[in-house]
Amino acid sequence: MSAEIVNPRSDHTIDAQDSLDSIDPAFALHRGGKMAVQATVPVRDKDDLSLAYTPGVARVCSAIAEQPDLVNDYTWKSSVVAVVTDGTAVLGLGDIGPEASLPVMEGKAILFKQFGGVDAVPIALDCTGVDEIVETVARLAPSFGGINLEDISAPRCFEIEARLRERLDIPVFHDDQHGTAIVTLAAMRNAARLTGRTLGQLRAVISGAGAAGIAIAKMLLEAGIGDVAVADRKGVVSSDRTDLTPVKAEIAAMTNKARISGSLEEALAGADVFIGVSGGTVPEPAVASMADNAFVFAMANPDPEVHPEIAHKHAAVVATGRSDFPNQINNVLAFPGIFAGALQVRASRITEGMKLAAAEALAAVVGDDLAADYVIPSPFDERVAPAVTAAVAAAARAEGVARI
Amino acid sequence: MSAEIVNPRSDHTIDAQDSLDSIDPAFALHRGGKMAVQATVPVRDKDDLSLAYTPGVARVCSAIAEQPDLVNDYTWKSSVVAVVTDGTAVLGLGDIGPEASLPVMEGKAILFKQFGGVDAVPIALDCTGVDEIVETVARLAPSFGGINLEDISAPRCFEIEARLRERLDIPVFHDDQHGTAIVTLAAMRNAARLTGRTLGQLRAVISGAGAAGIAIAKMLLEAGIGDVAVADRKGVVSSDRTDLTPVKAEIAAMTNKARISGSLEEALAGADVFIGVSGGTVPEPAVASMADNAFVFAMANPDPEVHPEIAHKHAAVVATGRSDFPNQINNVLAFPGIFAGALQVRASRITEGMKLAAAEALAAVVGDDLAADYVIPSPFDERVAPAVTAAVAAAARAEGVARI
Repeated sequence: MSAEIVNPRSDHTIDAQDSLDSIDPAFALHRGGKMAVQATVPVRDKDDLSLAYTPGVARVCSAIAEQPDLVNDYTWKSSVVAVVTDGTAVLGLGDIGPEASLPVMEGKAILFKQFGGVDAVPIALDCTGVDEIVETVARLAPSFGGINLEDISAPRCFEIEARLRERLDIPVFHDDQHGTAIVTLAAMRNAARLTGRTLGQLRAVISGAGAAGIAIAKMLLEAGIGDVAVADRKGVVSSDRTDLTPVKAEIAAMTNKARISGSLEEALAGADVFIGVSGGTVPEPAVASMADNAFVFAMANPDPEVHPEIAHKHAAVVATGRSDFPNQINNVLAFPGIFAGALQVRASRITEGMKLAAAEALAAVVGDDLAADYVIPSPFDERVAPAVTAAVAAAARAEGVARI
Repeated sequence: MSAEIVNPRSDHTIDAQDSLDSIDPAFALHRGGKMAVQATVPVRDKDDLSLAYTPGVARVCSAIAEQPDLVNDYTWKSSVVAVVTDGTAVLGLGDIGPEASLPVMEGKAILFKQFGGVDAVPIALDCTGVDEIVETVARLAPSFGGINLEDISAPRCFEIEARLRERLDIPVFHDDQHGTAIVTLAAMRNAARLTGRTLGQLRAVISGAGAAGIAIAKMLLEAGIGDVAVADRKGVVSSDRTDLTPVKAEIAAMTNKARISGSLEEALAGADVFIGVSGGTVPEPAVASMADNAFVFAMANPDPEVHPEIAHKHAAVVATGRSDFPNQINNVLAFPGIFAGALQVRASRITEGMKLAAAEALAAVVGDDLAADYVIPSPFDERVAPAVTAAVAAAARAEGVARI
């Protein structure tokens, strides 16, 4: 038997020789979890207790019962977000279930705190039906100031978000869709500026018609892109296809002015922008067939659809989802500030205008340092979250969804 | 207009002259809520991020997907409890709804942390049906190591707890029932020791047949009390009544060996113990009619059923629910250690044996200092939570419900 030690956090006896922890520092770091709750008020003696708990707390409860908005002033509701998943589309791992998704949800929660000062609680649900998830989240809503949906597979994620947005009066945001779209748009704005073009002059091709691909297409259209086509595994999502889900049929009607049909490779010929959110590999000749000064945003993790070394041979700007290459398209650039801004003004929802404002603010952080290897700030750039927060809060006020 | 200041916690602008905060320190203390989330691992740079989040986190997720028990080692699941309410029976305020209940749930959460080192998250639900609450909590269960039900009105609370205990493999504990019962039993054990009697020699009368009254009756029977009768507003709950709910009918069959019927006052004549968990007032002549060396545990808050000054004229031991009198029957003496002990050994449930062990451990803290005004420790006695934790963990092992 190997020696036993006591984990100071959990008091669980653990095996000092535990093989997972000793061979992989990710396991050692995750031991006991990555987060905790803390009291922000003292509970040292009976006087403290008489204010923070009975009898003092009863007066606060009564005041909220009479004037419901006070819940935002006198509880943590207005500073806490639920990070909700059903575990069906976790990272690139797919449907691994709620328990196995928890390390990602905890990670997300601590990023909310670290980067946005937003408290967040992992909620991994033991159900996958759209109705069940919508009902469950709606029942939880009194306790939270916002709902961040995470790693729920398409196409259910679209309906779940839409129904919750309709039903709740707090922000509901599916980060896999909109966080990715916001950061992509920010990078594209800067890449266009670098190469002396407007968004309206660009034709983009998106590989992937899941949560991220659909949301990116919609956001690029909102932002005024010249043309965009979305490709799934069967090729370009176009109106002449008969195999489209309702969401893809909607996208087919909104996109692809050029009326391209056929494969992703065919669509890339002459395109200005490639956006990969699918995995898989794009052959080099297809990349070479793109227009001059192309942008290649190959965001699959850990293996980009086009390796940056190959992309650089044919493109003016290259971005990936990886932290070990320049221009990392990382959602953490967006979601903490998005929620921090929305919560700051108690926004009832996150509007298109708030998302566009976030992308503009994020792009603007780069400023005069703009370069081919710097179209998007680092996740550790301390200017990012305050800039996004302020822009989102201002946009919420401008759009009339702020409540303070 | 009065000056505006910025709350450093929430960045919300608040009114410096806000009348609630200035006239009542409970409101000032509650401003912005009483709790926060914190990361327990560093997220300072991309190396940290690559372990705590992608790509490192994916390896931890995959390991849990393959070996589900690892969720307890590598997430905070095994140290976090959901404090779940529907807001229907909050303190003495009644059905004030989920939002207005949040200050109590946050208070409970910080007491879990302060006294038991247990992380806890307030979950106030926007539904009141038994089926809805059971389904919702079951769907949340993957994220939590235990469920503390709180301030859910009787009789729904009994069925909700029973069904969740049946369905889930984590501890489910309705504190209003069992926490109160455990602390009451501990105080009674010491009062009996002080007056040289065994529990088997005592006849108790409980005023109140709600969550606390029913649970106390059952626990006193488990512990071997001589006799116990429960009274609701209509008098003693006895088998000859035709107006009993199923839960009261069950209690009628288990209690009242003396076959008393009639009013609470009639039942008190010659009784050894009065336990008030009902509110209302017991007339002094009824208290005076109790046996010699009686115990009066008048736990209604803020107004005990018998004022301690009156109780002391007729009883050997007096306890209340108030912190400004000796012998405070306070649930915080039990629930932090109960859950800390259960989580420490990853108990699948909280058994009767674990609850009895908690009561014994709590009573034993008093030790040789036992006196009429010291039959139960102070909530701030630092020996309490470790003693309860150790006793509950040991009982879980002895009863075969511990998983590590």
